[in-house]
Amino acid sequence: MESDYGVPRELSGLQNNRLTYQPELPPCLQGTTVRVEFGDATTIADSAGAHAVSQSFPHTYGQRLAHFLKATAKVHGAQIISEHPALRVGLVFCGRQSPGGHNVVWGLHEALKIHNPKSILLGFLGGSEGLFAQKTLEITDDILSTYKNQGGYDLLGRTKDQIRTKEQVNAAMAACKALKLDGLVIIGGVTSNTDAAQLAETFADAKCSTKVVGVPVTLNGDLKNQFVEANVGFDTICKVNSQLISNVCTDALSAEKYYYFIRLMGRKASHVALECTLQSHPNMVILGEEVAASNLTIFDLTKQICDAVQARAEQDKYHGVILLPEGLIENIPEVYALLQEIHSLLRLGVSVDKISTQLSPWASALFEFLPPFIREQLLLYPESDESAQLSQIETEKLLAELVEAEMNKRQKEGSYKGKKFNAICHFLGYQARGSLPSKFDCDYAYVLGHICYHILASGLNGYMATVTNLKNPSNKWRCGAAPITAMLSIKHDGRAMTVGKPLIHPATVDLRGKVYELVRQNARKLLLDDIYRNPGPLQFDGPDVDSRAVSLCVDDLDYMGRIKEVNEYLDKVRSIVKPGCSQDVVKVALSAMSSVTNILSVMSSNGSA
Amino acid sequence: MESDYGVPRELSGLQNNRLTYQPELPPCLQGTTVRVEFGDATTIADSAGAHAVSQSFPHTYGQRLAHFLKATAKVHGAQIISEHPALRVGLVFCGRQSPGGHNVVWGLHEALKIHNPKSILLGFLGGSEGLFAQKTLEITDDILSTYKNQGGYDLLGRTKDQIRTKEQVNAAMAACKALKLDGLVIIGGVTSNTDAAQLAETFADAKCSTKVVGVPVTLNGDLKNQFVEANVGFDTICKVNSQLISNVCTDALSAEKYYYFIRLMGRKASHVALECTLQSHPNMVILGEEVAASNLTIFDLTKQICDAVQARAEQDKYHGVILLPEGLIENIPEVYALLQEIHSLLRLGVSVDKISTQLSPWASALFEFLPPFIREQLLLYPESDESAQLSQIETEKLLAELVEAEMNKRQKEGSYKGKKFNAICHFLGYQARGSLPSKFDCDYAYVLGHICYHILASGLNGYMATVTNLKNPSNKWRCGAAPITAMLSIKHDGRAMTVGKPLIHPATVDLRGKVYELVRQNARKLLLDDIYRNPGPLQFDGPDVDSRAVSLCVDDLDYMGRIKEVNEYLDKVRSIVKPGCSQDVVKVALSAMSSVTNILSVMSSNGSA
Repeated sequence: MESDYGVPRELSGLQNNRLTYQPELPPCLQGTTVRVEFGDATTIADSAGAHAVSQSFPHTYGQRLAHFLKATAKVHGAQIISEHPALRVGLVFCGRQSPGGHNVVWGLHEALKIHNPKSILLGFLGGSEGLFAQKTLEITDDILSTYKNQGGYDLLGRTKDQIRTKEQVNAAMAACKALKLDGLVIIGGVTSNTDAAQLAETFADAKCSTKVVGVPVTLNGDLKNQFVEANVGFDTICKVNSQLISNVCTDALSAEKYYYFIRLMGRKASHVALECTLQSHPNMVILGEEVAASNLTIFDLTKQICDAVQARAEQDKYHGVILLPEGLIENIPEVYALLQEIHSLLRLGVSVDKISTQLSPWASALFEFLPPFIREQLLLYPESDESAQLSQIETEKLLAELVEAEMNKRQKEGSYKGKKFNAICHFLGYQARGSLPSKFDCDYAYVLGHICYHILASGLNGYMATVTNLKNPSNKWRCGAAPITAMLSIKHDGRAMTVGKPLIHPATVDLRGKVYELVRQNARKLLLDDIYRNPGPLQFDGPDVDSRAVSLCVDDLDYMGRIKEVNEYLDKVRSIVKPGCSQDVVKVALSAMSSVTNILSVMSSNGSA
Repeated sequence: MESDYGVPRELSGLQNNRLTYQPELPPCLQGTTVRVEFGDATTIADSAGAHAVSQSFPHTYGQRLAHFLKATAKVHGAQIISEHPALRVGLVFCGRQSPGGHNVVWGLHEALKIHNPKSILLGFLGGSEGLFAQKTLEITDDILSTYKNQGGYDLLGRTKDQIRTKEQVNAAMAACKALKLDGLVIIGGVTSNTDAAQLAETFADAKCSTKVVGVPVTLNGDLKNQFVEANVGFDTICKVNSQLISNVCTDALSAEKYYYFIRLMGRKASHVALECTLQSHPNMVILGEEVAASNLTIFDLTKQICDAVQARAEQDKYHGVILLPEGLIENIPEVYALLQEIHSLLRLGVSVDKISTQLSPWASALFEFLPPFIREQLLLYPESDESAQLSQIETEKLLAELVEAEMNKRQKEGSYKGKKFNAICHFLGYQARGSLPSKFDCDYAYVLGHICYHILASGLNGYMATVTNLKNPSNKWRCGAAPITAMLSIKHDGRAMTVGKPLIHPATVDLRGKVYELVRQNARKLLLDDIYRNPGPLQFDGPDVDSRAVSLCVDDLDYMGRIKEVNEYLDKVRSIVKPGCSQDVVKVALSAMSSVTNILSVMSSNGSA
């Protein structure tokens, strides 16, 4: 099988056309010399956890941010990276394939060879399993020739397994040592980058000279924080899904007889569902975060949808499109509790057919109430990140069945007088995951690949490659690197199975944010007025080619830029309040600065920031 | 609700961009004068049925082909259509929405207004139901302004109901009379065009002056015959489906752990599955026509797939993509027989929960063997064309379950030693049906719309608009009209419920044709070598924009062109064998022509042609 990886392939006209596309580097990375500026030492957002994280990551906690600048940039203390010894770098795909992943390989390979043609990039075959087994393929121009700007992870393959247990970490370290790697690049989402942080710490502690670099590549779009604005693949996935959702909306409006329940791949957080809502304008979206925040039960949800169906029936509308994130099921409190019980029993080795007899009384009652197909799916063994096998649980079918039963009941009782309710269910994920990447994802991944090189050339360990200002054209992008430890946090909400362990937690949809607000404000219009919108199939030519995800453009994401701005204010104050200035100026400055400092101290210690 | 039809809408950037696209007319339809040439009187392919058809359609059988030519064309007997009185025309969408349908409306409206601004086009609201109820919307430039080149049928809506019963036909005639229609244009597939033929005959018999015109618009691609090369919507559907299938192929190859079973919408014939196979190169496709021709049972099919899985496992491959047409289930002989029993019982009014007790012993045995979800789906009431509710029967899930059971059995017995078999199922139909139409479908539908006008201006009744030479650029297209009666045939195979009634039968995939041969020749490579190919998302700009369906280009479709060529030979013989030519020439001509005539007579009476 391995011999098939990286083989040249017959491509379609469009695939060949995409091969010729050359992403542009932002000015800071053009040419052969790059300047690196080190910013402030990093902390973590949740200051209460800082101590615990610093204890667990003594070597890699508190490292400074890095910014990559033009060689000509005049910044105090920024150094030009002038030495470029030949590097040996390994790269591994982890977790769900995400469109654009191949371009990280391309960008990194190109940067390595530009700076030293003797550098070598080894791809691990078959994901983490290949890393443990030391199965590699040397990346060459020839091998890349049919994979540039193409979807999937089939250049190298992947497994979903983590790099976490002692055996796995040791096998990874043994591979890095045996292959004399200067760097190991891990391409993946929250789980894989958490593993990358741990690996970096373990390597440093064991004096293994391999530096570990993480790259934020996940279709879920949930690896978001102060340093990371977006993930490779999210843009493509949302565009492909939105095309399909919009086609279904058009279909609904043409035939006027079906409700479509569409579940979207994207793990626990609802970013994909939210973005697709903004692009397609379906009638309804149910976000996991809303359900969790309001503690809605499955009966509340059913009622909510039935009321919507009824409101539409009053306008003589018997069709509609409803989006659900795949993570919804884990956000329904009573179902989550049931899942936790099932998973504990499974981990204790209780066999599947015995589980229902060992549940607590109320969990058992809920379990028995659910239709057989869902029961079977809830009994599946949990994933490596402790969550349920979300892609296999047909929440859309469950809700459609419950809504149908309730509508029939209302009809019988006479409280609903419309036509019979008909549902059709879809799960969109696999159809989108292997798509040709959008221009944005091609560009973003390629630039991240280049940044990986500069991180390694700067000798940094435990960093993630970052690009900010992404909503602007790529020539305005800012490139940098952030210590992965700065993205860790410790959950205390009593629900996560992993309480007490520092992890990168998936960012959830911010219910107080601007993006969510956009949907909330239009909820009634969306529900009743069928203001469907079809972004159409992903285009690689023509006026729409540079479009960005709506959520990327709406949010104020430039965290690093704003930190810089704060620093500029501080510098300005310093330059005004110099010996020789008036007493009054000093007085005002003192009062204002003391007030700012007090407010910030209170906010940070509350953890509300 | 009706007030929502044809309302202006908010469109996306790409939708707006598509609005500005102007299809080009072939030279023969440009300008304001068109010449119509009448060809030979038509017969039907199956000469045995000709008498019966001529009896059922005394007014509309045997009409002559019509060709629309440039005003400047010098063809003996072709007349310029010079009078253009104001026409009142009605238009109705029938059956499954197909991308491009809106452009027929646009083309027809434009042609009407160019030739006489006083002409009026009325769209029936909500499909055939709107026709019976005389609910109309007058089409105007304003109304069309947000529907040009857009998908769906939502400008007017549709119902799937036929126009067939005495009440329906009378209601349609009443509507045409009340609205003083000169023409009624029916947009649909085989069923709707059969209805159009019947309606034309009934109207002629009743001296109703409304002329009926059919337009071949169906995503199934099964309205194919000597006169009709392709159907509006098929190109788009296959391209959108192929994009998704290819994405799934890439996914399969990246994760290497799933078999994807993908069922494709397309009714009984397997044209969509065949075309998607040519575009995407999945590992396997099972055509309904193959199954019917070889009388394969459901167990044969299961075994066939299991053997394929096993052959791939021997190459260490545990992933794959298998396509199935939605009509497959009706092509499996024993399942078809079971369905026939169920449908007869349903028509007799037997209630669903009683049916299993009233089946014949062997049908009952098969029924009990099937998993519960399939049993439920087989019990659904048949569609208006007598077929099962194909979109609701999850054949892909049935086969995946049977294959999984068989693989587990083989593993237990030790005859299969590979990894566990895992399947994921998809049904692709609704996601594609509402798509923005491809450039080809936009052009084709728009031209057909124009042709509808010329058919009506020529005073023809019971004709279908036709375009031939479609595989070439649109400036080479030939425009014409064929009597729908020439497409009718009578089935004698003892299986169809409708024996004895002349119908347009869906064209099935020709297992002796070039297109099927392409797939057959490559079957082994497709199965084992993963030669996946990704045509990518539908493009509206760039080099691939004019691509055609593979099957359209491979087949020798130019039937009308070839009939013309035969006629040219006949003319040539006549011009050589003139009084005064040598005895020898006459002798040779006599012998050759008598031989040709004999061969053709034998072939036609055998019905083998």
